[in-house]
Amino acid sequence: MQYRIPADDNRERAVCTVCSTIHYENPINVVGTVPIWGEQVLLCKRNIEPRWGKWTLPAGFLELGETTAEGALRETHEEAGADIEMGPLYTLLNVVRVGQIHLFYRARLRSTTFNPGPESLEARLFAEHEIPWEELAFRTTRETLHSFFEDRRAGRDFALRCIDIP
Amino acid sequence: MQYRIPADDNRERAVCTVCSTIHYENPINVVGTVPIWGEQVLLCKRNIEPRWGKWTLPAGFLELGETTAEGALRETHEEAGADIEMGPLYTLLNVVRVGQIHLFYRARLRSTTFNPGPESLEARLFAEHEIPWEELAFRTTRETLHSFFEDRRAGRDFALRCIDIP
Repeated sequence: MQYRIPADDNRERAVCTVCSTIHYENPINVVGTVPIWGEQVLLCKRNIEPRWGKWTLPAGFLELGETTAEGALRETHEEAGADIEMGPLYTLLNVVRVGQIHLFYRARLRSTTFNPGPESLEARLFAEHEIPWEELAFRTTRETLHSFFEDRRAGRDFALRCIDIP
Repeated sequence: MQYRIPADDNRERAVCTVCSTIHYENPINVVGTVPIWGEQVLLCKRNIEPRWGKWTLPAGFLELGETTAEGALRETHEEAGADIEMGPLYTLLNVVRVGQIHLFYRARLRSTTFNPGPESLEARLFAEHEIPWEELAFRTTRETLHSFFEDRRAGRDFALRCIDIP
């Protein structure tokens, strides 16, 4: 691979020095949910790096062949084994430094039986005052939870929030 | 490249038969705007394939190093040479069949001087009754324009619309 500007382009791309194939590198999507049970939110304790042992909202990379909502539902099943009813899109976070866009949907838990998959050590419900703010894995989880509790306290309707994370 | 399921994964990935590097293939983001001047919307006539000669809202692939709004602004400059003030996110469209997510922001034109780049044959304003519905390049443009005029006629506030395109 060599970085150069292809003929009909205006920025450097990774180009194969053997076959000249251009390998475009673009931001990637992470999709997840804010699963709610009454006053509580479901978080998962990570069993994988990065941030092993830290808490996160259930989320993961969007795959080909699924919509963003379908991916968020799948990740909630895979990481928490939780049964949810999907709600509307709630946050869109640009994490430019790592080339990621995170999308979180509100969701309603249908039961409190969880079955965390291999990527999670534990899945459990937290009331607002129990949230382990210092033990959260990612800033996108922190911003989404912060927005959620703020909107709920204010009695607002959880309109979409777009947040840029430097 | 060979498609197989890596040890700690649950779906097939493209794996290099020489160095074992896993090449993840994920959906890609297309970002653009709905640029408004009074009752009119700005469209660009494509000078590139696919859909050469068809009309589209200014949009293109999101690049690393920019937020979705910054990418939408850049594409509007590159394709239409239009001076805009960015507004809020308006549509999120999942185009699962081609592995794309399209994001369109509302935008206000600051002038009617356009300077279409090499990817556009022409950039011009259309009132609703002038929209070339049969000559639009992409269904995401059609759905976004349709939603926009519908919301405007109903006097609604252009809340985010999430649309799945089969």
